[in-house]
Amino acid sequence: MIGRFQPFHNGHLALSKQVLTECNELVIVIGSAQFNYIYKDPFTGGERIEMIHEALEESEIDLRKCYIIPIINDENNARWFGYLRSMVPRFDVLYSGNEFVASLTAATVKIRKPLFMHQAKYNGTYIRLQIAKGKPEWKKSVPKSVSTIIEEVGGVERIKMLIETDSNPQLW
Amino acid sequence: MIGRFQPFHNGHLALSKQVLTECNELVIVIGSAQFNYIYKDPFTGGERIEMIHEALEESEIDLRKCYIIPIINDENNARWFGYLRSMVPRFDVLYSGNEFVASLTAATVKIRKPLFMHQAKYNGTYIRLQIAKGKPEWKKSVPKSVSTIIEEVGGVERIKMLIETDSNPQLW
Amino acid sequence: MIGRFQPFHNGHLALSKQVLTECNELVIVIGSAQFNYIYKDPFTGGERIEMIHEALEESEIDLRKCYIIPIINDENNARWFGYLRSMVPRFDVLYSGNEFVASLTAATVKIRKPLFMHQAKYNGTYIRLQIAKGKPEWKKSVPKSVSTIIEEVGGVERIKMLIETDSNPQLW
Amino acid sequence: MIGRFQPFHNGHLALSKQVLTECNELVIVIGSAQFNYIYKDPFTGGERIEMIHEALEESEIDLRKCYIIPIINDENNARWFGYLRSMVPRFDVLYSGNEFVASLTAATVKIRKPLFMHQAKYNGTYIRLQIAKGKPEWKKSVPKSVSTIIEEVGGVERIKMLIETDSNPQLW
Amino acid sequence: MIGRFQPFHNGHLALSKQVLTECNELVIVIGSAQFNYIYKDPFTGGERIEMIHEALEESEIDLRKCYIIPIINDENNARWFGYLRSMVPRFDVLYSGNEFVASLTAATVKIRKPLFMHQAKYNGTYIRLQIAKGKPEWKKSVPKSVSTIIEEVGGVERIKMLIETDSNPQLW
Amino acid sequence: MIGRFQPFHNGHLALSKQVLTECNELVIVIGSAQFNYIYKDPFTGGERIEMIHEALEESEIDLRKCYIIPIINDENNARWFGYLRSMVPRFDVLYSGNEFVASLTAATVKIRKPLFMHQAKYNGTYIRLQIAKGKPEWKKSVPKSVSTIIEEVGGVERIKMLIETDSNPQLW
Repeated sequence: MIGRFQPFHNGHLALSKQVLTECNELVIVIGSAQFNYIYKDPFTGGERIEMIHEALEESEIDLRKCYIIPIINDENNARWFGYLRSMVPRFDVLYSGNEFVASLTAATVKIRKPLFMHQAKYNGTYIRLQIAKGKPEWKKSVPKSVSTIIEEVGGVERIKMLIETDSNPQLW
Repeated sequence: MIGRFQPFHNGHLALSKQVLTECNELVIVIGSAQFNYIYKDPFTGGERIEMIHEALEESEIDLRKCYIIPIINDENNARWFGYLRSMVPRFDVLYSGNEFVASLTAATVKIRKPLFMHQAKYNGTYIRLQIAKGKPEWKKSVPKSVSTIIEEVGGVERIKMLIETDSNPQLW
Repeated sequence: MIGRFQPFHNGHLALSKQVLTECNELVIVIGSAQFNYIYKDPFTGGERIEMIHEALEESEIDLRKCYIIPIINDENNARWFGYLRSMVPRFDVLYSGNEFVASLTAATVKIRKPLFMHQAKYNGTYIRLQIAKGKPEWKKSVPKSVSTIIEEVGGVERIKMLIETDSNPQLW
Repeated sequence: MIGRFQPFHNGHLALSKQVLTECNELVIVIGSAQFNYIYKDPFTGGERIEMIHEALEESEIDLRKCYIIPIINDENNARWFGYLRSMVPRFDVLYSGNEFVASLTAATVKIRKPLFMHQAKYNGTYIRLQIAKGKPEWKKSVPKSVSTIIEEVGGVERIKMLIETDSNPQLW
Repeated sequence: MIGRFQPFHNGHLALSKQVLTECNELVIVIGSAQFNYIYKDPFTGGERIEMIHEALEESEIDLRKCYIIPIINDENNARWFGYLRSMVPRFDVLYSGNEFVASLTAATVKIRKPLFMHQAKYNGTYIRLQIAKGKPEWKKSVPKSVSTIIEEVGGVERIKMLIETDSNPQLW
Repeated sequence: MIGRFQPFHNGHLALSKQVLTECNELVIVIGSAQFNYIYKDPFTGGERIEMIHEALEESEIDLRKCYIIPIINDENNARWFGYLRSMVPRFDVLYSGNEFVASLTAATVKIRKPLFMHQAKYNGTYIRLQIAKGKPEWKKSVPKSVSTIIEEVGGVERIKMLIETDSNPQLW
């Protein structure tokens, strides 16, 4: 499964469980791993790895079956899937509700749909906005360990600062 | 002549004929060649090379006088013209209605205006929108061989999918 | 101090003087140095170096205390400050009204606020718009030597052309 | 701990165990992750992730305490440590026998020495040469699961081919 | 067929003819297209396109069946073939005597061997050395039109200068 | 004038003086600015800026006439001169004993020869080797302020470490 995981939320966790019900192993690919400290991408690749690792452990998912791998973007979409193949363990199923991702695999893997992803509150954009507005309900949309890490790294202040700065860059 | 050719349409073909009337040889430079599977840039560099090659041949243009060359973008505009010079055969006329491109050549080439480019329907944005909306008139704006290639590579479905996905990226 | 300096204006000059009152030396970092011939970034890195150098000299600032250094962007914000450190002389104070820049320094430098930056007319966006609209008042917002260089390099025509082209790119 | 892991061998495994004796968690950073199908770097990032994951599991190391993270190189060494920080979980000890790596950390982490790394046969260069020469002893220098993966992905033939091609590239 | 074509020589021409005997169309991919003014890579991508175009025309090869496409390198070999696919017309046979190239295609194309490539004098390294030493026999190894272009662009002096400079760079 | 300035030595200083005798202004371009902590390129761009600035001031050269500008490399040599133009103030003379650099300027500037560069001891390679070997004579080849900065930043230990590490990289 692939995502930006800004942050990793309960919808992502549900998909992780679905994959492990249907497959032997789970590869979680963190896309846009090089972006951080942007309102749309507030957390570093390393922080997102921590979040996912802790969330899986909190759910007592067997980490011997899991891989968590950061991937940087490729501006050439047609080349991207070959890049993905080169950076992750061998796999033969891709979970994606995004037809775009599916179209780039050149039919070399099976595509399966996520079951629980589309609930409105399990959505990174919505969660970041709640954090930016100071609404504590955002914690209900993410695993406990994720909200702990977000607070440890100063993520709430960071997101509030970034929504401000992005719309009013004084110098830069 | 330079363009993104997403896709190559009758306006581009008219300009190709104009150039060959006024010059000995024609160099067609495909810009943004590294982009593909984006709504604004749906076709790969390779697909665009095919379209142009076939369209010129369909019009019985002498391919011994033609060069079709993909070029990737350069974020530094002031450096771009030197890059262009290094990647194409020697030339001394540039056809461009775009004052911006002209300003980057440092007056080292002659600039000539395209004659027929500005008709509303010979416009990549308009053609992609027609395809996305399922309006078959788009075929009238491109050479027959181009519409054939677009259909062979699944270009109609691709553009419909991309206009959808770009505005609603679920995960990515 | 850091900025894009498109162009270097009186607010930047005031900050330069403030820094030299409070510190021994001044390092002016030109960000986004690789961009040029874009409406938002019309001047090359080299042109901006000239503007700043001349403006400091015009104000009789001691250039033995000043460094003017172009820096290209880094898509990874968390890595950016390490990059900055590697490309400029040793420093221990950063002048920035931008909380975002401050947050990336990992508390390894002191942050001080610019005093005079926030006047409406000392603003690159506003100055470029005045130039594009042909309003000669823009010259009042920049040092005399900066307006001279802008005119020498054809900057007025360039900005007028870029505001036109960016909103209506014919081919490209 | 950091390495290229071409391939992951018994010396690396010994260091992994040492780290987990002395620390709570282990982060294994796979450097030069973007290189592959070169004699010096025969295995892809993904293949190396598989090797390390399987080798740790084979040794019954608790994978809940382990992170395996591929990192691409940075040509600017002084920026590299900031990049590393942005891509991995928080850490405060770095295991490295390489004074060079240590010098780039700007004294922000503790450096500890690997204990068992320096045995001659636990050395990637030596192991690749044994494989290239068809000497089966190479299997004694790596965990069983690593030799299995190398054989599954055709790694022996790949290394033999690469030592040949690198010294005699006909066309390329 | 793929090569660096520094320069395009009679061995390359023989392979071009072989391909057109066995296939409907010929795609000539110019690798390392971004390198130039290096002793190993003296000619620009554009100069190499000219050489190949003229050489094919000199041999009365039907250019309606030919594509000449410059490609820049990819440091990630495992991703390279996907990149190649995205930048050239559809193809299903690859001519290569280089097992390395073949190994990267993931068995998605047929591989055929060049018949005449291995003659000692049809070799870019040898031809560049002859030029550098001022031995006029190099002209016998390349098509007439190629030697003409090399002389027009000052290629003989360039190669002599580069062999000198590369081994004794004073400043740079 | 262009150089890597690893480090800036008395030969470079002599050339600086020559330029200011023959021209109104001096632009010193620091090439390969992104490299550092390599035996061949031990100092960062920022450290080299400091060295040059201090050395010019020590010689009582008028810094109002001087520009010191770091430039990163461009793998495409034919594009490089356009890049240089975009990043430095306007200039019309280039001082270079290197025919290679001259050949890339496309005859758009005058080339003049350095007068004093070729003395054996004014040579970066030689100076770095003396430092690595612990021979204090290296200080005689560089301005006093340069040797002071090298010692302040730990440059002697760095070079000794790098000559060691480059030839014996244990892990990396």
